[in-house]
Amino acid sequence: MVRKVKILEEYELMKKDFKVIAEKIDNFILKHLPNNVSNLWKASKHYIIAGGKRLRPFFILKSYSLLDENFEKIIPIAAAIEILHTFSLIHDDIMDRDSTRRNVPTVHTKWNESLAILAGDILLSQAFVFVDKTKIPQDIKYKILIELGQVSSKLCEGQAMDMEFEERTDVSSEEYMKMVELKTGSLFEISAFIGGLCANASVSQIKSLKEFGKKFGLSFQIIDDILGLIGEEKKIGKPIGSDLRKGKKTYLLIYALEHLKNPEKSNLITILGKKEKNNDDISKGIELIKHSGAIESAKKIVKNLLDEAISKLEVFPDSEAKKELQRLAKFSIQRTY
Amino acid sequence: MVRKVKILEEYELMKKDFKVIAEKIDNFILKHLPNNVSNLWKASKHYIIAGGKRLRPFFILKSYSLLDENFEKIIPIAAAIEILHTFSLIHDDIMDRDSTRRNVPTVHTKWNESLAILAGDILLSQAFVFVDKTKIPQDIKYKILIELGQVSSKLCEGQAMDMEFEERTDVSSEEYMKMVELKTGSLFEISAFIGGLCANASVSQIKSLKEFGKKFGLSFQIIDDILGLIGEEKKIGKPIGSDLRKGKKTYLLIYALEHLKNPEKSNLITILGKKEKNNDDISKGIELIKHSGAIESAKKIVKNLLDEAISKLEVFPDSEAKKELQRLAKFSIQRTY
Repeated sequence: MVRKVKILEEYELMKKDFKVIAEKIDNFILKHLPNNVSNLWKASKHYIIAGGKRLRPFFILKSYSLLDENFEKIIPIAAAIEILHTFSLIHDDIMDRDSTRRNVPTVHTKWNESLAILAGDILLSQAFVFVDKTKIPQDIKYKILIELGQVSSKLCEGQAMDMEFEERTDVSSEEYMKMVELKTGSLFEISAFIGGLCANASVSQIKSLKEFGKKFGLSFQIIDDILGLIGEEKKIGKPIGSDLRKGKKTYLLIYALEHLKNPEKSNLITILGKKEKNNDDISKGIELIKHSGAIESAKKIVKNLLDEAISKLEVFPDSEAKKELQRLAKFSIQRTY
Repeated sequence: MVRKVKILEEYELMKKDFKVIAEKIDNFILKHLPNNVSNLWKASKHYIIAGGKRLRPFFILKSYSLLDENFEKIIPIAAAIEILHTFSLIHDDIMDRDSTRRNVPTVHTKWNESLAILAGDILLSQAFVFVDKTKIPQDIKYKILIELGQVSSKLCEGQAMDMEFEERTDVSSEEYMKMVELKTGSLFEISAFIGGLCANASVSQIKSLKEFGKKFGLSFQIIDDILGLIGEEKKIGKPIGSDLRKGKKTYLLIYALEHLKNPEKSNLITILGKKEKNNDDISKGIELIKHSGAIESAKKIVKNLLDEAISKLEVFPDSEAKKELQRLAKFSIQRTY
């Protein structure tokens, strides 16, 4: 009982801390994107106004705080990462034909596809402009700008792989991990890296932060895959099984395709091959995936990744920020239970 | 006769010079975008391989050469501008539903819309990475990176205005000029500016180069508008009157709407209001526009802009590059006759 109270207390602390950072980031973004009436700028702010956790800014600021508590000066850079992330959400939503995100209509649904393309483009462009608003040495900002160009290329490569996988049933778990590294891991990796870079972390500390970010990012995607299949619709903001409906190759589906024997395997492939999958198909598909042991395997991988991630923080002195990052990792494991 | 021979000779010289630069730029781009088999990278190179004049790289390199002949070292930056331009072409083609460009199928037609979105995104991202490949002082590269972020925002704003104008018949010529400044002028302006910046131009020289680039860019778009209405289909690579068919607010159409009296004005508005315009509508529309005096007005504006542009080069010492930029401006005037 005492233990449970402690966990709840910690959870509330973490939530509060997230809220403080999210407010700072949102204020910065909304203040620095032009406040005019054009639909283009409105569309670019749509997902920011709709909410979200600002997980990547949290990552940068807490990584920075491992070495220097005064993170205020790098808020523009954390905001840059958030709008770069938002660019990828807007464009991914067009490609995935998603109609809601963060409980609001997606940008291309509320306006139109052309405006959504432009809103994404302008956010990507503004990410670079945002970096200039930080008062840190120019050589560090220069490095960050080049990193932003590289990471946004990786996001595109990951999304292209993800889409290409939709047409295939022979995607291996190695290919999946490569895709997730590009599409999700890379932005967490760079977030932790930039935090350390701005705080003058040593070479070995930077290496640890990158590993921490990458492993956290990978686990984050696999948790997302799990919750998409066995979570609560309201919490995850999309219908259960929607990945399966689209033919998205999640860790779970790939595991099932690799481990099920016939006739179960061919039944699953038959469902995947259907252009229009009805609710019965989806339920059957979910059952088959569960039966393969995919969920247990995914949970194990998540736990390993997050344990490894946490261990990467050992090279840093004890601090409030270190506790918070460890706490985030621990709660992430619990999200799947 | 002698005069005509001289002009032809000059024209051949200019063409040759363009070809030399285009080859250098293309080689650099194709060497530095990953050479793998994924459709994403193939799609990103599609318009580069298809051809094109590389006008913006020409602008940077010749602006640089006004002060320093050894332009080789800034080729990566000229290539960065070209791929940034290509990003905007790929995305604009999706929005404008164009099916061919440079005599090849557009990216979204050859592959699909999703891949075209990503191919544009990755080229925009790589533009920033390309800048890093130049061996010039880091503080100059830093300035260029921020400028790239700003100019690509402007391209998006211009395209959004252009699309919004399609729905309206009351666009003023001031609004049109603002749109063209953003959508076309800005990239020429920054090209000339960056050339000067890299060659250590003085503050007043940089100011002149920016004006030169901007005015050239504006004239370039108006010439495009003219040729789209009275040019040769084969040369311009799209059907005559296709802007009119889409309801694009060109300088000519805006002039006609501002200057025609009824019933001609209302006839033109009726044609614009038709969702499906047949060939007869287009011919009639073109006649009405011609009758308004729009083409004479556009030619006058082009001549003024280019005369002003040329005059901006006076602050530079005489050089081969100066002659070439002047020549380009002069030939641009002649394109409309």
